[in-house]
Amino acid sequence: MTTTADTPPPDAGRDPMLDAVRGGVTIYDLGRPLYAGMPQSPNHPAYTHTLPRRHGDRTRPDGGSAANDLISMGTHVGTHIDALAHVSHNGRLHGGADAAEACVGGRYPEHGVHTVAPMVRRGVLLDVPAVLGVECCEAGYEITPADLDAAVRRQGVEPAPGDVILVRSGWGRHFADPDREAYIGGASGVPGVGADGARWLAGRAPHAVGADTIAFERLAPGEGHSVLPAHRVLLVESGIYLIETMDLDALARDGVHEFTFVLSPLPLVGATGSPVRPLALVAARGREVPRG
Amino acid sequence: MTTTADTPPPDAGRDPMLDAVRGGVTIYDLGRPLYAGMPQSPNHPAYTHTLPRRHGDRTRPDGGSAANDLISMGTHVGTHIDALAHVSHNGRLHGGADAAEACVGGRYPEHGVHTVAPMVRRGVLLDVPAVLGVECCEAGYEITPADLDAAVRRQGVEPAPGDVILVRSGWGRHFADPDREAYIGGASGVPGVGADGARWLAGRAPHAVGADTIAFERLAPGEGHSVLPAHRVLLVESGIYLIETMDLDALARDGVHEFTFVLSPLPLVGATGSPVRPLALVAARGREVPRG
Amino acid sequence: MTTTADTPPPDAGRDPMLDAVRGGVTIYDLGRPLYAGMPQSPNHPAYTHTLPRRHGDRTRPDGGSAANDLISMGTHVGTHIDALAHVSHNGRLHGGADAAEACVGGRYPEHGVHTVAPMVRRGVLLDVPAVLGVECCEAGYEITPADLDAAVRRQGVEPAPGDVILVRSGWGRHFADPDREAYIGGASGVPGVGADGARWLAGRAPHAVGADTIAFERLAPGEGHSVLPAHRVLLVESGIYLIETMDLDALARDGVHEFTFVLSPLPLVGATGSPVRPLALVAARGREVPRG
Amino acid sequence: MTTTADTPPPDAGRDPMLDAVRGGVTIYDLGRPLYAGMPQSPNHPAYTHTLPRRHGDRTRPDGGSAANDLISMGTHVGTHIDALAHVSHNGRLHGGADAAEACVGGRYPEHGVHTVAPMVRRGVLLDVPAVLGVECCEAGYEITPADLDAAVRRQGVEPAPGDVILVRSGWGRHFADPDREAYIGGASGVPGVGADGARWLAGRAPHAVGADTIAFERLAPGEGHSVLPAHRVLLVESGIYLIETMDLDALARDGVHEFTFVLSPLPLVGATGSPVRPLALVAARGREVPRG
Repeated sequence: MTTTADTPPPDAGRDPMLDAVRGGVTIYDLGRPLYAGMPQSPNHPAYTHTLPRRHGDRTRPDGGSAANDLISMGTHVGTHIDALAHVSHNGRLHGGADAAEACVGGRYPEHGVHTVAPMVRRGVLLDVPAVLGVECCEAGYEITPADLDAAVRRQGVEPAPGDVILVRSGWGRHFADPDREAYIGGASGVPGVGADGARWLAGRAPHAVGADTIAFERLAPGEGHSVLPAHRVLLVESGIYLIETMDLDALARDGVHEFTFVLSPLPLVGATGSPVRPLALVAARGREVPRG
Repeated sequence: MTTTADTPPPDAGRDPMLDAVRGGVTIYDLGRPLYAGMPQSPNHPAYTHTLPRRHGDRTRPDGGSAANDLISMGTHVGTHIDALAHVSHNGRLHGGADAAEACVGGRYPEHGVHTVAPMVRRGVLLDVPAVLGVECCEAGYEITPADLDAAVRRQGVEPAPGDVILVRSGWGRHFADPDREAYIGGASGVPGVGADGARWLAGRAPHAVGADTIAFERLAPGEGHSVLPAHRVLLVESGIYLIETMDLDALARDGVHEFTFVLSPLPLVGATGSPVRPLALVAARGREVPRG
Repeated sequence: MTTTADTPPPDAGRDPMLDAVRGGVTIYDLGRPLYAGMPQSPNHPAYTHTLPRRHGDRTRPDGGSAANDLISMGTHVGTHIDALAHVSHNGRLHGGADAAEACVGGRYPEHGVHTVAPMVRRGVLLDVPAVLGVECCEAGYEITPADLDAAVRRQGVEPAPGDVILVRSGWGRHFADPDREAYIGGASGVPGVGADGARWLAGRAPHAVGADTIAFERLAPGEGHSVLPAHRVLLVESGIYLIETMDLDALARDGVHEFTFVLSPLPLVGATGSPVRPLALVAARGREVPRG
Repeated sequence: MTTTADTPPPDAGRDPMLDAVRGGVTIYDLGRPLYAGMPQSPNHPAYTHTLPRRHGDRTRPDGGSAANDLISMGTHVGTHIDALAHVSHNGRLHGGADAAEACVGGRYPEHGVHTVAPMVRRGVLLDVPAVLGVECCEAGYEITPADLDAAVRRQGVEPAPGDVILVRSGWGRHFADPDREAYIGGASGVPGVGADGARWLAGRAPHAVGADTIAFERLAPGEGHSVLPAHRVLLVESGIYLIETMDLDALARDGVHEFTFVLSPLPLVGATGSPVRPLALVAARGREVPRG
């Protein structure tokens, strides 16, 4: 590649990422499908999709017709990312801003999701059920620092500062459960890290963390979303973004614990979060990339 | 990288994409910010964002509080991708399906945007104003096959099958115009390819095409969206996705004509399109990637 | 009252309704409050209210500020009226129109709720629990023609053609139940008329009928909304509008069985229903109306 | 009418309002139809209606099918009423409440539209164009106290405390104008009362006031909604509700200046306004009401 047509330097011009793409990339889709009736937190506006116009409603003289959509939704439904504006503690957002004053004209200009830059980073999966020798952590199970340490040891992949760390509990299997409430939790809770696990994660200085559950962190049986210590530790105290409702099962199935993580949040100006469809990319390796 | 902690093959295990990430990647954000009042087609539901809950509205006993959002919007507003369900011609979608029957229960199960796989592909920018020696194509200007050929020659970058081709008209500069109608067009039209330019593009067999305008193709002065031949040629006849309202100016400014293109549409089940935030990635090159 | 200032006819000009208003009118509010989380059918988009702008967000130079709302909702939530477009049987709407073809451009131009004229009519309450000697009909109880006959006899008020007949089951007491599902029904069903009761009602040729339940008619235990014979008999076969989720308890408490019924549906062009706040008016009687 | 079946008092039991209904009532519909693309203030979320389900999408085994709607809208679009929560001056709502603190949990519990009781009151139309000898007041014309006095004199109908006063400018004719902006105003303004006319109205102590324009009051040419003195005088200082975007032309055409006014706002809990469809009722007079 060159920036002018004249003097493409024979070698220096090759883009190693584009070479990797040419060599073949496996894309893991870490997002869940969005549809009315999918499991979502009752704290957020429900996802609704409808077709104001369908084919057949209006056909142009040239034979063309267009169908279109209206979607109405919270931003913390489906697979999504929490911006710093989402959670405060004792009236303060991350960095100490007054949470009430941070809202200007019905938007969060400094802490909204439009300030979250697209991510192209190393991603690391910590597969907790694999460590525990189960298919899925139990409802309400608190993932401990020891569990996280064991996952690192077992996998041989150490998280580094700036990475995106994804903590798999196996709970994602309940997303498509016929009992819609199963994934959300309720009486028996949802597995995930608590305050201690959150501190373990914050200690690795990741750029963002994610999980296959609706609230990222453990929900204690019967307590619902009344206390969210991991949100406080990660989002408020540490400025680490949270990604929720991810699909991490294919990565676990294939034993993929390290990958290129890509996430491009919608720049919804002043909003507290965004639906996203994150990707884990794994390039073919150990073979010669064709030059061309 | 290895899938177990025991036997990481010393070399074969390196992921060249991850190596490229480690070596440094420049991310070009090709998406426009979404906010109420942004330019958008009047044919689609307006983008609305509001905060049902702000900090201060409800504080939990532990001192935590959460703000959240409601967004309501069409899917063809802001930077977005058109799924095959979006446009039909003479009652047929791409592939020949009956457009009316393709809608089942208020969704397009076979042609909806949830069927559009995330893209990690070679991207090519065709910078038409650079060829024409202008900053921006004129309102209503039809970009011709000759213009596209000239851009390829000037840039020295040939589109290949499966690529994503982005056609820049320079019109994106009007997105933030104080006159909101300027970007949308109206009486004087919007530049872009017509039927001939669309056929030129389809002849390169790209996976998707994009532009920095609201309708991808040329809007003739005073005609608005009444005739859309490029949609027919590309989307209906060729099954090539369209990406609209892109920001292509930084790529042009930096002379970046070839890159890794990443786009991850929201899997809105059965919808005709999705808002997206596409990325162009350029890796540092010609230098040794540290091993570690 | 006169239409010009010159010659008010001394007596003929008096409006007897305005005289009744001057004499004092008791207004019974038959509508339920609308709020997020209220009981509503899961078949319809959820009611959402949010404030895009609050006081303090933007103050004009003159010291003024305005707060405003966004509401998003189905039209069959809260107290509402069903238009003829709402229900079809064997592909036909009331009057025989093809139900699929009745939709033109995403609207029902001939059968939508905008075609429902505002109502100022005699209203009659049939208080079934009073007849049965209970406070509330049991879950899943089918109100029979014999029950309706008994209510007419007990009350001494005979429905006449063109009236609006309101059938009270007592179920409205569950609207504010802490268990949100109680009002909606579910496993144990909801009381109301079945096909026979619907035929009894249709036989009185009312203009509209209403009830204090979410579906007007009986929901059999465990069957939910899978079969709705009263909708068929009344709405489809007879063209009689249905009003649902009414508050009829104050009328029953005060023994008001006959009244002026007022309902003014929002003229939502082409929609299948509208939220409403119906009123029952009772004027002071037997006393001299002051003239002047 | 009687409250028990046993002893209907032969005469005292007659309800004079019901008698008036029996004698015949002319209903004037003062509401405008709601449809996408209707003229509305750009300050409020746009009205959107779409059909999530149409007939044919899903048919139950018994042959029944139901179509339904999603509506999304501001509450100050279409014909609507402003609650006390809508406007503040110098940080205070009517009655002196702090406007920012009046919002609790994203709602206005004390000043919301759910606190506006349904109205059944004497209504008075002040037909200003009839006084001025024009069909419609000019754009930006300020209706003066002298104009209002002249209307009272000409009509021979004096507003009384507690009435609802409707001020007609004739501007409603622009609602259905092909140029959508015509009704909203813009460069040339909209006719209506200013601060002086508002004080004249407040001096009559009406319960509510209404007009056939989008902002009730005069919009000066080129100033838009930047200064709204009549809102301040009426809503904030006097606690008099405002009704906007009314259709007053049929009343004027028929010379109806006094009537029974009925308005039943949706009890949208905590909202700043509600769409409404107000009615003006005129009963047949001077003839014997049949007893039966």
